[in-house]
Amino acid sequence: MSENPLHTLMSPKSIAIVGASNNPMKMGTMQALSVIKDGYQGKLYPIHPTEQTVVGLKAYALPEELPETPDLGLIVVPMAHVFPLLESFGRIGTKRIIVCTAGFKEVGNDGKHLEQKLNETAARWGIRFVGPNCMGIINSAISLNLTVMKFDGRPGLLGLASQSGTYVTQTLPYLRKRGIRLSKAISTGNEANIDLIEAMEYLGEDEQSRAIILYIESIRDGHRFIEAARKISPHKPIFAQYVGGSAAGARAGMSHTGAMAGPDFLYEGIFKQAGIIRVHSIEDLYAHGWTAATQPPLQGNRIAVVTHSGGPGTAMSHVADQGGLELPTLSAGVQNEIRQYIPSHAASANPVDLTFNMDTDRMTVIIPEILLKSGEIDGLLIHGPMLSGWMKEAHPHLAMLF
Amino acid sequence: MSENPLHTLMSPKSIAIVGASNNPMKMGTMQALSVIKDGYQGKLYPIHPTEQTVVGLKAYALPEELPETPDLGLIVVPMAHVFPLLESFGRIGTKRIIVCTAGFKEVGNDGKHLEQKLNETAARWGIRFVGPNCMGIINSAISLNLTVMKFDGRPGLLGLASQSGTYVTQTLPYLRKRGIRLSKAISTGNEANIDLIEAMEYLGEDEQSRAIILYIESIRDGHRFIEAARKISPHKPIFAQYVGGSAAGARAGMSHTGAMAGPDFLYEGIFKQAGIIRVHSIEDLYAHGWTAATQPPLQGNRIAVVTHSGGPGTAMSHVADQGGLELPTLSAGVQNEIRQYIPSHAASANPVDLTFNMDTDRMTVIIPEILLKSGEIDGLLIHGPMLSGWMKEAHPHLAMLF
Repeated sequence: MSENPLHTLMSPKSIAIVGASNNPMKMGTMQALSVIKDGYQGKLYPIHPTEQTVVGLKAYALPEELPETPDLGLIVVPMAHVFPLLESFGRIGTKRIIVCTAGFKEVGNDGKHLEQKLNETAARWGIRFVGPNCMGIINSAISLNLTVMKFDGRPGLLGLASQSGTYVTQTLPYLRKRGIRLSKAISTGNEANIDLIEAMEYLGEDEQSRAIILYIESIRDGHRFIEAARKISPHKPIFAQYVGGSAAGARAGMSHTGAMAGPDFLYEGIFKQAGIIRVHSIEDLYAHGWTAATQPPLQGNRIAVVTHSGGPGTAMSHVADQGGLELPTLSAGVQNEIRQYIPSHAASANPVDLTFNMDTDRMTVIIPEILLKSGEIDGLLIHGPMLSGWMKEAHPHLAMLF
Repeated sequence: MSENPLHTLMSPKSIAIVGASNNPMKMGTMQALSVIKDGYQGKLYPIHPTEQTVVGLKAYALPEELPETPDLGLIVVPMAHVFPLLESFGRIGTKRIIVCTAGFKEVGNDGKHLEQKLNETAARWGIRFVGPNCMGIINSAISLNLTVMKFDGRPGLLGLASQSGTYVTQTLPYLRKRGIRLSKAISTGNEANIDLIEAMEYLGEDEQSRAIILYIESIRDGHRFIEAARKISPHKPIFAQYVGGSAAGARAGMSHTGAMAGPDFLYEGIFKQAGIIRVHSIEDLYAHGWTAATQPPLQGNRIAVVTHSGGPGTAMSHVADQGGLELPTLSAGVQNEIRQYIPSHAASANPVDLTFNMDTDRMTVIIPEILLKSGEIDGLLIHGPMLSGWMKEAHPHLAMLF
């Protein structure tokens, strides 16, 4: 197996960015600022035809004028400049490129030809690239953020490969609020060269990524996808959202990334064969992925629900049951242990309902310990501490979850 | 039809509360503080056996000592005191009571008998009551909040009747963050007297409530429920979450509110006959309800998606399609109008994708206007302005939605 091209691309020691200027409303400028502000420790070289400095850094007119060969070049310029720049990077020996520029396969046949030409040019110089029509990458292990949005600098555990750039960028504030932290993220765009399968393989090899989530508009090589996923899914959970299986979704994907979608049942089959768990919303993609990244796999399907609210506890019990989990009635012994810590009128059979209660130790430490040591359950769902930030303060040892 | 007992109960001119003290960790105290802090303009009378003042208000030892007959009495005291208090309120002529105290039907046969006794006592005095084992009510029209949590004072449009008190209380911060505002909310508890059906009927008559959401663990009289809902659902949308239809959900509901649940398919049929839309999560209950409360009904199923992000736009198109909506390809005329406002490589067929764009007027005013005037669609889904609070500032005329 040849080395995955993303190893260098995701962990460059130096980056040249073309398309950053001193106009903060430009995508390239925002990306350069993300690199600087989010703490990347490597070298960043802006390339600009006229400016002396860009975002406070010395700018160079051409790749050929750089003091060293950057490991990675990022191109976010109008179409006319893409090809000469790719040639320039080729000449100086840069082997990894991200092409953010849009206007390729997604606009029709002309764009498709341009994309072939892009691939041919890259091949001539031994370049492997991500894009075109993409939004950049994130590698939290080295605080590298090549997107237009601020990234929460703490390294995360969830790997993302996405045919939508938005899933890698505009979702960042949403993820930050929920304490969901990415390990690595790759916006694969039109996938003229490096594709979602290679991105998934890279995340499969990446020790930091404990679970993988995929946003998919189309997979071009189903066979290769299944083969690659099968090597990963037995030891690292993979979740996928596929949106191309309806007439509207397929048309939207076509104009978005030039995706040739297939019928929904076909992808359903692909995911089953590949051991991939399918989700049906953006929220579920991140939430399920984060759960799998931070929790050990269940050893069985017996669940206990601990709550201080009968309604949500009942709703959770119902949903768990509907989803194939079992809520066993707890033994008399375990119930008696628990009853010391709950009011006499409260339920202990499972769910365990503390009812209105301000003593969060019972809910988050004492009763969970009794349950987890009982041998009667395999997993625990706790619903209750509603005061935002409270758990973090009271239980700093759980910090990795937040 | 006799007057719905909730008309007086939800709009009292004076309230006596028994169970509030000067201990802020007690449920009754929290409820009294909610009444004061959230701006209720009627009279509030704390009743306390020993304290001279409670939460800053003059306290009375017994209902019999009050200077007037309160329209509503709220009882949140240990079981032993509930019956004497109910008798006291009966003697002074108070006809509406909320019993928050738990320990009735939900704890088994003894509790069931106590509940019958509660009903008999009330009947003797012509009292109608909500509860027992409930969490209070909210009437945003008169800034009355009888729950333990702070309510956002602005009157809302969404009516809630819930067999879970949590749905009426602990969800309030969640709803506030999302701009979802309740009109009226009733925690029905064990429903010894006033039940969910009467609560639904009350919300059906209430002009402020433009949609109704229900949390259900069991309905005792399916026939009456269907009959009542059928009168409301043609002109006011009703959404329901039913959680009793699995073994685990039924057991949980039994210990929560003494609910006798029925099989899932039975309720599925009841909802269909009643014209009620079923949802399957807490989040959907509020989100769908709020959408229905704030948006006019669709006149057809033709939808346009406007986005600045291909991925979410594609995902939304797919989900709309899967849900039975149609995303028609827009006519050449409409597409040409739109193309003036989007980059040449961007999609206009539907979804309309502005791609990376900071001009929010195009997304939220210009293009929506072209689409809504075209006659080619019945509804519009906009995805894009991500800067929280931005819409509110820029488009104050949309304030009712936030």
